[in-house]
Amino acid sequence: MNFGSDNMGPVHPRVMESLTRANDGYALPYGEDALTSEVTDRIRDIFEAPEALVYLVALGTAANALALSALVRPWQVIYCSRIAHIVMDECGAVEFYSGGARLSLIDETHAKMQPDALRAMVERDAGLDFHAMRPGAVSITQVTERGAVHSLDELRALTAIARDHDLPVHLDGARFTNALVALGCSPAEMTWKAGVDVVSFGGTKNGLMNAEAVVFFNPEHAKSFDIRRKRAAHLFSKHRYLAAQMLAYLESDLWLDMARSANAAAARLAAGLSGVAGARLVHPADANMIYAALPRAAHRRAVSGGAEYFVTLDDLAGGAEGDMIETRLVCDWSTRNEDVDQLLALLRG
Amino acid sequence: MNFGSDNMGPVHPRVMESLTRANDGYALPYGEDALTSEVTDRIRDIFEAPEALVYLVALGTAANALALSALVRPWQVIYCSRIAHIVMDECGAVEFYSGGARLSLIDETHAKMQPDALRAMVERDAGLDFHAMRPGAVSITQVTERGAVHSLDELRALTAIARDHDLPVHLDGARFTNALVALGCSPAEMTWKAGVDVVSFGGTKNGLMNAEAVVFFNPEHAKSFDIRRKRAAHLFSKHRYLAAQMLAYLESDLWLDMARSANAAAARLAAGLSGVAGARLVHPADANMIYAALPRAAHRRAVSGGAEYFVTLDDLAGGAEGDMIETRLVCDWSTRNEDVDQLLALLRG
Amino acid sequence: MNFGSDNMGPVHPRVMESLTRANDGYALPYGEDALTSEVTDRIRDIFEAPEALVYLVALGTAANALALSALVRPWQVIYCSRIAHIVMDECGAVEFYSGGARLSLIDETHAKMQPDALRAMVERDAGLDFHAMRPGAVSITQVTERGAVHSLDELRALTAIARDHDLPVHLDGARFTNALVALGCSPAEMTWKAGVDVVSFGGTKNGLMNAEAVVFFNPEHAKSFDIRRKRAAHLFSKHRYLAAQMLAYLESDLWLDMARSANAAAARLAAGLSGVAGARLVHPADANMIYAALPRAAHRRAVSGGAEYFVTLDDLAGGAEGDMIETRLVCDWSTRNEDVDQLLALLRG
Amino acid sequence: MNFGSDNMGPVHPRVMESLTRANDGYALPYGEDALTSEVTDRIRDIFEAPEALVYLVALGTAANALALSALVRPWQVIYCSRIAHIVMDECGAVEFYSGGARLSLIDETHAKMQPDALRAMVERDAGLDFHAMRPGAVSITQVTERGAVHSLDELRALTAIARDHDLPVHLDGARFTNALVALGCSPAEMTWKAGVDVVSFGGTKNGLMNAEAVVFFNPEHAKSFDIRRKRAAHLFSKHRYLAAQMLAYLESDLWLDMARSANAAAARLAAGLSGVAGARLVHPADANMIYAALPRAAHRRAVSGGAEYFVTLDDLAGGAEGDMIETRLVCDWSTRNEDVDQLLALLRG
Repeated sequence: MNFGSDNMGPVHPRVMESLTRANDGYALPYGEDALTSEVTDRIRDIFEAPEALVYLVALGTAANALALSALVRPWQVIYCSRIAHIVMDECGAVEFYSGGARLSLIDETHAKMQPDALRAMVERDAGLDFHAMRPGAVSITQVTERGAVHSLDELRALTAIARDHDLPVHLDGARFTNALVALGCSPAEMTWKAGVDVVSFGGTKNGLMNAEAVVFFNPEHAKSFDIRRKRAAHLFSKHRYLAAQMLAYLESDLWLDMARSANAAAARLAAGLSGVAGARLVHPADANMIYAALPRAAHRRAVSGGAEYFVTLDDLAGGAEGDMIETRLVCDWSTRNEDVDQLLALLRG
Repeated sequence: MNFGSDNMGPVHPRVMESLTRANDGYALPYGEDALTSEVTDRIRDIFEAPEALVYLVALGTAANALALSALVRPWQVIYCSRIAHIVMDECGAVEFYSGGARLSLIDETHAKMQPDALRAMVERDAGLDFHAMRPGAVSITQVTERGAVHSLDELRALTAIARDHDLPVHLDGARFTNALVALGCSPAEMTWKAGVDVVSFGGTKNGLMNAEAVVFFNPEHAKSFDIRRKRAAHLFSKHRYLAAQMLAYLESDLWLDMARSANAAAARLAAGLSGVAGARLVHPADANMIYAALPRAAHRRAVSGGAEYFVTLDDLAGGAEGDMIETRLVCDWSTRNEDVDQLLALLRG
Repeated sequence: MNFGSDNMGPVHPRVMESLTRANDGYALPYGEDALTSEVTDRIRDIFEAPEALVYLVALGTAANALALSALVRPWQVIYCSRIAHIVMDECGAVEFYSGGARLSLIDETHAKMQPDALRAMVERDAGLDFHAMRPGAVSITQVTERGAVHSLDELRALTAIARDHDLPVHLDGARFTNALVALGCSPAEMTWKAGVDVVSFGGTKNGLMNAEAVVFFNPEHAKSFDIRRKRAAHLFSKHRYLAAQMLAYLESDLWLDMARSANAAAARLAAGLSGVAGARLVHPADANMIYAALPRAAHRRAVSGGAEYFVTLDDLAGGAEGDMIETRLVCDWSTRNEDVDQLLALLRG
Repeated sequence: MNFGSDNMGPVHPRVMESLTRANDGYALPYGEDALTSEVTDRIRDIFEAPEALVYLVALGTAANALALSALVRPWQVIYCSRIAHIVMDECGAVEFYSGGARLSLIDETHAKMQPDALRAMVERDAGLDFHAMRPGAVSITQVTERGAVHSLDELRALTAIARDHDLPVHLDGARFTNALVALGCSPAEMTWKAGVDVVSFGGTKNGLMNAEAVVFFNPEHAKSFDIRRKRAAHLFSKHRYLAAQMLAYLESDLWLDMARSANAAAARLAAGLSGVAGARLVHPADANMIYAALPRAAHRRAVSGGAEYFVTLDDLAGGAEGDMIETRLVCDWSTRNEDVDQLLALLRG
């Protein structure tokens, strides 16, 4: 039973098969191959964005940092949730790639930026004089770092603030598809129709080996992306193997099916936790990632029984509510119902 | 018949099988998995360097730029051949990763730095005062960009200059194994025993999908590598798939066999060119890459017959020696004798 | 009546005389002149720090950004007050000079970091894994951006947290001398004896034309400063004119006298404000800078009467306490009692 | 007798007087003062460029590095003479400010780029594909690092190459006025009429304390200059003291008179060297800087007699032409005829 992270599970067999199919003779390198052309067209279709510019990279951090570096100048500010992935988990990649842009950390609820806090900060900065760094871009994470999914209204509330100040909007979609199936909307609705200008369209956490797409809905924003990717050593010579993954992903709804499967497993787990005495959800379990407060005794039973997951706060609320800990439980496409049930059984004791 | 580049051929089937084997259940991410541990041990063994620090990345440019950025400070100079890959083909990656270090371009013969020119430049720079950038490191490419292989004596002649000025030495080994089997020496002999401090140990151009190792023989030099790799978004979450490639590579001499096969195909082609009227080698064809001057008529026959390769100089020597062009012909592990023979037949007319 | 900023007033005549004296014949450039040698010795004496390394630059932002860039690596975090000068007024200079280090904004009171908030943030970051940026340094501003002066105990409370985590401490002393005379302690007591490792020792805001010193008490921290200053174009060729300013500054207590004069003018103004109906201090007026809430009517009288100063909040507390605004009133060495009294008369109406 | 450098001499007394005049009461900071406005207008007049954007900084390296960083992107190449000041004497400032742009070193004669070599390199680079850095800008130095002055035709020959490839042209005019009076042309003729887009208009080496102007003839090129200067800590708070220097400089032809005086002293010295047995000029002494080969015995007499200057090559031509050394002899506005004559007398023996 592994609920450690959706980057710990296996690659979907159909993706492996696609890699094997692609491994046939010679192909032009650096994205000039037929598979790359095919997959970028496919992504434009899916996003209903025929003018979009699409680039493949292998890592989500590369997608985020390259995309944001193309949006801002080094003396600008990127607004994001106080606990966004680009803040906590990318070791300064955005600062590195942008040449010193600054992240402005906005207060959050379930890792969603609070619109009022975002608006207040952008307005403050917009009113500052030449001594201060300038507003540059807004970055939203969907699914958030705490497992919550922004509704379309919530997305629009944030992007409206950006629009009011002519700031481009980036969406960190490392778990894009998990959010998409949770909302039941179209990719276009969750992105450009909601005011998003560029999306890191994740694949790695949803059953791929190492492939992400960066999709710019406004070609103006992408002007430097190509050369930035090359200069940063993120343009693969054997590019067809990125394309082959992404092609398999988008074929016959595999991406949607994998996300639905992961979300369903997480929903089953969340529902089951109501049967664990003392356990409760710390954040809404909207997609495939659950933050749960667990009695330490239940946790010990689970670990002893072979369950793997992260403890995010060892002593929740300073012990105020008893011997509780906070855990993160992540499901991926390969999580089986019996794994969930076994974990629940252990927790229930 | 494709002689375009060794990054255009397929991945070796045993590498694909290794990927499939690795795709089994859950594994710790970010290099904490068992395969990564196994492969780094294996690389230490192969290099007879039990203290070496080993890191995997997916691209040769990432290997070079990260390794060099760990060796130098932003105000230092890296000495390399005037036409090194880091000069001509990495779009400023070294400058980016190092925060502005400078490449000092040394005159070359067959893309090998001329030792006298290297010594003169390092000595000049070492004698400059605080207005000037400081000597920082030497980077050697083996196989060179023109297909030549440094002998061990030639390597030592260059590294001796570096040692005289306390400069660390980096080896860009994108085609490391092709050079190794050409020299018939051990990895240790071609690296640390010859004065090399860190090597970009290539795999992608020799039958892997996307895996390179950076090997530091002096752990002091690697102090910042780990965090630089993470910050630059080159630390893979699903790291096992890099390790699985490299494991297959090093198993049962696959790496050596593939390089021998590529070199043999190139040797067959080089030998055959002596039967093509007017054709001649422009550089020594020491490994798997041939620079050949071809009569334009022969070239046209080859292309019409379906051969693919790059023309590197369309009008060799300004037409001084007749209607000649310069071409680059690269063999990889998958190049077949019949492909070589077919190309030669076309060229002979 | 100008209370706009201490960078708007004139240079002290004795400083001008010193420049004229220095303007005699030839002198070695780049700090190898006799005046520079003399002034760095003098600064070591004043700080009772014979091993200190001393560097002159022309701007406070250069002093701060260069000093901090020498202390941290690009993947590290600098902790500072949420409204520090390096956050609000230097347009990303620290991020630029450091190559992408991050400022972590600590909650403050009167622009003093709250020790509990600092400790909590450093401890959180110290506990994070390799995905996160690393703790790098602490930067304290004395006088703070809101005119308050840290007591020695308050300084020690902050530096102790840094020490507990092996973080070097930088002091932004753009108004160093104003704080010094306010505390009545020695330069050593306010710096290295209180746990400060490097200080930006300001001069420009206290009667110089454009000269600041960076003083490293621990030579290890200064290892890269020299070359960073040169590379950033902050090493003056005609360096004697920086030295001449700083020499005049430190001669016959001119620096202390100017700061005392500025502080006394501010104290006179602060005291007089108690006679202005409705006016009150928003922050402690510990040195030469006053943040005062003024009734708008009083403000209008002052401005109409020719007073100049900045309005920092046009509608204090959203109008909740009536028609109040927040203003910043700064005195420098040249502020005269009659200017203060005239301003007070206008405010009183 | 000091012929060390034109940054070792004194500031002209009229510049000191202007500083003293400017030191009167309060003035707006950061270039919003009246003197700055006056001087930027004056510079536009002098350059016959009413649309030009003018910025003051204190150091020539800052002028060069900021100007070039505004012209190019980090992945572009700047073409310049192999021994330009930005190559040899600025410690990587251009690389730092530009975020990693590369200097491409063009073969030179008397430190003038050879037009054929420039054209060949730009054309080669323009023909490279996406793997390579892109052509970005051309930087010319006038007076060159070897004391030669480009004729207007020579300037135009270089800028024509830039224009053919849409590259902006920067002129490093640290000794702008020395060249101007040597050519006897107008500032416009030596800059925008000759194809120059932005000039570092030097003052420090010609009798100022520390003031240079950056003049953009094409406002498009200057779009990011303002914020780059601020972020790099080169925007002075007490900006009037930069303006005051530059105003005095341009008043009553002081700048031209000082340059003429320096050039005349150098011409007197160069002429006198023909009377020194064995001495000869190594480069044309077109302005105020002489590179002279001297017999070692003559050199020893000069040094013993108190002359100061730099030896640039201790053993000229490896001793092939006898015991000769190469020296650099620089005159500034304050060099007196008697100093020149005394040096010549010593050299003659």
